Amino acid sequence: MLELVNQPEDLKRLSVAELEILADEIRQFLIEKLSVTGGHLAPNLGVVELTLAMHYLFDSPKDKFIYDVGHQSYVHKILTGRKDQFHTLRKYKGLCGFVKKSESEHDVWEAGHSSTSLSAAMGMAVARDLKGEDNKIIAVIGDGAMTGGMALEAMNHIGHEKKRMIVVLNDNEMSIAPNVGAIHNYLSRIRSDKHYKKAKEEVENILKKIPAIGDSLAKKAEKIKDSFKYLLVNGVLFEELGFTYMGPIDGHNLPLLLDSFQQADKVDGPVLLHVVTIKGKGYKPAEANSQAWHGASPYKIESGQMLKSVGPPMYTEVFGSTLIELAEQDSRIIAVTPAMSAGSGLLKFAERFPNRMIDVGIAEQHAATLCGALAGEGMKPVFAVYSTFLQRAYDQVVHDICRQNLNVAFAIDRAGFVGPDGETHQGVYDIAYLRSIPNMVLMMPKDENELRHMLKTAIEYNEGPIAVRYPRINGLGVAMDEQMKPIPIGTWEVVREGAGYAILAVGPMVQLAEQAAELLKPQGMNVRVINARFIKPLDEAMLLQLAKERVNLITMEEGAAMGGFGSAVLEFYANKGIYGMQIKPIGVPDYFVEHGSIAEQRTEVGLTPENIALQIQAMLPRKKVRA
Amino acid sequence: MLELVNQPEDLKRLSVAELEILADEIRQFLIEKLSVTGGHLAPNLGVVELTLAMHYLFDSPKDKFIYDVGHQSYVHKILTGRKDQFHTLRKYKGLCGFVKKSESEHDVWEAGHSSTSLSAAMGMAVARDLKGEDNKIIAVIGDGAMTGGMALEAMNHIGHEKKRMIVVLNDNEMSIAPNVGAIHNYLSRIRSDKHYKKAKEEVENILKKIPAIGDSLAKKAEKIKDSFKYLLVNGVLFEELGFTYMGPIDGHNLPLLLDSFQQADKVDGPVLLHVVTIKGKGYKPAEANSQAWHGASPYKIESGQMLKSVGPPMYTEVFGSTLIELAEQDSRIIAVTPAMSAGSGLLKFAERFPNRMIDVGIAEQHAATLCGALAGEGMKPVFAVYSTFLQRAYDQVVHDICRQNLNVAFAIDRAGFVGPDGETHQGVYDIAYLRSIPNMVLMMPKDENELRHMLKTAIEYNEGPIAVRYPRINGLGVAMDEQMKPIPIGTWEVVREGAGYAILAVGPMVQLAEQAAELLKPQGMNVRVINARFIKPLDEAMLLQLAKERVNLITMEEGAAMGGFGSAVLEFYANKGIYGMQIKPIGVPDYFVEHGSIAEQRTEVGLTPENIALQIQAMLPRKKVRA
Repeated sequence: MLELVNQPEDLKRLSVAELEILADEIRQFLIEKLSVTGGHLAPNLGVVELTLAMHYLFDSPKDKFIYDVGHQSYVHKILTGRKDQFHTLRKYKGLCGFVKKSESEHDVWEAGHSSTSLSAAMGMAVARDLKGEDNKIIAVIGDGAMTGGMALEAMNHIGHEKKRMIVVLNDNEMSIAPNVGAIHNYLSRIRSDKHYKKAKEEVENILKKIPAIGDSLAKKAEKIKDSFKYLLVNGVLFEELGFTYMGPIDGHNLPLLLDSFQQADKVDGPVLLHVVTIKGKGYKPAEANSQAWHGASPYKIESGQMLKSVGPPMYTEVFGSTLIELAEQDSRIIAVTPAMSAGSGLLKFAERFPNRMIDVGIAEQHAATLCGALAGEGMKPVFAVYSTFLQRAYDQVVHDICRQNLNVAFAIDRAGFVGPDGETHQGVYDIAYLRSIPNMVLMMPKDENELRHMLKTAIEYNEGPIAVRYPRINGLGVAMDEQMKPIPIGTWEVVREGAGYAILAVGPMVQLAEQAAELLKPQGMNVRVINARFIKPLDEAMLLQLAKERVNLITMEEGAAMGGFGSAVLEFYANKGIYGMQIKPIGVPDYFVEHGSIAEQRTEVGLTPENIALQIQAMLPRKKVRA
Repeated sequence: MLELVNQPEDLKRLSVAELEILADEIRQFLIEKLSVTGGHLAPNLGVVELTLAMHYLFDSPKDKFIYDVGHQSYVHKILTGRKDQFHTLRKYKGLCGFVKKSESEHDVWEAGHSSTSLSAAMGMAVARDLKGEDNKIIAVIGDGAMTGGMALEAMNHIGHEKKRMIVVLNDNEMSIAPNVGAIHNYLSRIRSDKHYKKAKEEVENILKKIPAIGDSLAKKAEKIKDSFKYLLVNGVLFEELGFTYMGPIDGHNLPLLLDSFQQADKVDGPVLLHVVTIKGKGYKPAEANSQAWHGASPYKIESGQMLKSVGPPMYTEVFGSTLIELAEQDSRIIAVTPAMSAGSGLLKFAERFPNRMIDVGIAEQHAATLCGALAGEGMKPVFAVYSTFLQRAYDQVVHDICRQNLNVAFAIDRAGFVGPDGETHQGVYDIAYLRSIPNMVLMMPKDENELRHMLKTAIEYNEGPIAVRYPRINGLGVAMDEQMKPIPIGTWEVVREGAGYAILAVGPMVQLAEQAAELLKPQGMNVRVINARFIKPLDEAMLLQLAKERVNLITMEEGAAMGGFGSAVLEFYANKGIYGMQIKPIGVPDYFVEHGSIAEQRTEVGLTPENIALQIQAMLPRKKVRA
């Protein structure tokens, strides 16, 4: 069946029974393809019938399908001409793991971060109505993403304006991790209440009988009936927000899905269609542990064994184990995560210190300010967050934490390139957006051993906010010091002696800088390599020393060059009135770098030993302006 | 009475009747003091009884009072020892217009931006419980702030964890502007439904009678009763989120307030106390137009006539009128504001184009992404937002708008220093955080005439996001061109010829630069002044020309120097391999600048013609490092 289906129109010729066969084939296709490439297996297995129903009933791209986050768009991709490219999924120059406009006209809204779909749907609805068009708009959002502040802001607006659209609440009781929060509890209650439908019927019966109770009550009954809508509908919370609520329905029952969509389509206003799905549906290992299978590495289909990366521990793991050590000694420490316990390496911490582990769900803004208040009360909150998601809390970092100079420690994971997740997830802006905020201290370790010392530094620092950023890669396999010691704030470290040239390298760039220096050795060049472990404040004494020596400087960072660490060095010399040094800042250029391996991404932008060596050689004939 | 009250303990000696007299006196005090200083009159007149009740019953600072936004903390300030400083309100080195820890131990959480109080309350509650303490936590949040995403994120978390606290929903049907959104509609329904209490009783009666209807129904009645909680409680939305809802109560009835607080205090878990207040209560002009009196200029008490600033129109007004002109000609234009129609100069636009004006309420994140989707559908959204509030939408600007390269125009008001609102509202980070995002074009006009051309430029630019930032000041009173013409992207303008020295000035700094040049003329120095009207992209041709001429450069911007425009210039030359030019970047230094007049704030950081002249003179003896 799948061989015959390449575009949505192929689908429309099938019977519902054939659609059900197709659903099985798509599941097999996904399980096979992703066993080689890896990818978001569990979320996509959960939305096979849902996606089929949408493309069967509606007319994409005239009708707009908006996938929140977009990691559950694989089935959509299969049905819109991209089946044959699945072997390139999430690979360099291959198929994107999220919705991507450049791939297909059926991809009308891109994401990667969560909770944006309802705002997008509202924008499309406003534009549609202003233009007098009549296309349909269907947003698919998970129950996890629904708790993100911007989704709630959008609900508030949509419910008020009563714009015609269907919001599919894809309720699998999970974001990436199991969900938390009152809204989640609320959904659970709806889901679990099997007797609800019966109760509704009964209440309707009672209402009919009320006039018989007595005359005095009868005339009041009409008024009371209005209030009974609370009972007559499930999903009162959504109804109160102005949505027509439908559900919960089984998201793997195609006839029911088709029927519900048709009903929803008749409503003149926003509908919330509550669809219950099973993450990983149809593949036992994924059903059994949907959290591990949210984003899967390549795996053996039979056993469900994922191929593990070999090598030294990831920075993430070192963070997690070190935080446990630190928390054993310091009862002020509380870990805070926005739905990323596993991704941030905090599962063991949560087991060891359940009372000192706070998962707020997808709610970065709240998480940041919560940390601020904890710090204000003398605790030492550690906000474990990916660089790209910290963007969501930028104002809270500025206005709540840095402005009040609160002792929040930030553990910024996935800083720098992130590989296959690509441009929506690159952690390359945090240096630029954090270092311009007063009171912030910002570090990055050259290896996993230094990460431990930096975490110790962050915990012992009690003069305001302090952040350590680290990459999504394995450590270097270096020896680990037994004793953790705080690093003096604003001090750098010479890791390789040299003269005439110096590379100021941040984090993993230190290793690349050392390799570049090695490449230049045969040419008689003796390049100093400095571990610029503090991005803010700078090591001013060392910078002045470098100026005194009149070295040529290269700065290296896996972050946006605009406004980044290199700029900080340029600013320092300009403010000191020191001119005439050759300084070459190398970082991520001013465009969004797409998915691929981290090595491919680094190569694309020139963050390689070979390119650095070339850049240093190019400095020789100085293009100097003499004033 | 007020003379006897300086601290909360003084209050506790009074009877309720005396409290009521005190309330009147406080109102008189506020009306008199603010008639001279200006300030947030209407919000504070609304919370007199509420604040009295809180300080009467609870023990601040042991019990924590958290004021959302903090502009309604004047009564709190009066009751906590700061009565005698009210003549310095919002003045340089005077009393802050918001909560300020450095002023009093009773100020436990600072804000200025909205919707942070619930996250702060949750942090304090978690810390309290971990430390085994028993203090009370009372957050006061307006109905406007309640729709901000982070407040909803916090509600979701608090309701889940069931932390003991009282959230006072100060419902005055307003944020600054009249509220919008489904939650607002919901509150209105609660407020307006006078028969609700009666209905509740009636339903209870019906429930009692159900068993009499018949046996088959009787045994089911018990089950159904559970569902009736929807009816038996008001505030079902909050109840569903895990809060105990109480209200709505009259926020100007002191005995009722005291009684309600006492009841709320008994609940072991989060309580939402819905208090209905009248903004401007007790001062007729403010009651009649609470929007205008939200933040009042000095006024005549008798007439309620506010002293208007004289002089040329504010940039804000020029924006508003120009957008109307542009929208007359271009039906793609839609204005989007997060609850700032008046502040952003859009009231007339809203009258003229009601269908093309979207006020989303306090919801910056949603607003930004909504704009992205509108742009994706071929509209030309103009996101009118204050620089400081755009911080709330940083991720949406990066991930949704710039990454998808959507044609959103940003009208960034209050860029630079904002005067009396002070450090929470300074618009000094946007240059740093926006210019490091790929695809962004960023402009700032030297005068109000240029603002018009820049708006035209923004509307006609169809290659991605484009922003124009402008200050919270009057224009220069320059002649206005009849015809608006787009300015070629990335071009600067020489506004004063000169040689040897050049100032690259951004926005209002152009005028100061010209004055600095004038100051240096008698010394035979002939300083060129350049209007660096594009912050991104830079005018590369002009920068190369300046390098060729070997001029000494000064950059001037009313924005954070770290990562700002000056850094962009430094980066440009470094990337081009041009060394040896003297470049002095002048901007806002790396600390939070407090309240005062804009002139005082500029003087404090050295953004004055006199200081610039000194800086230029200091460049003469070049401290040049020769390599």
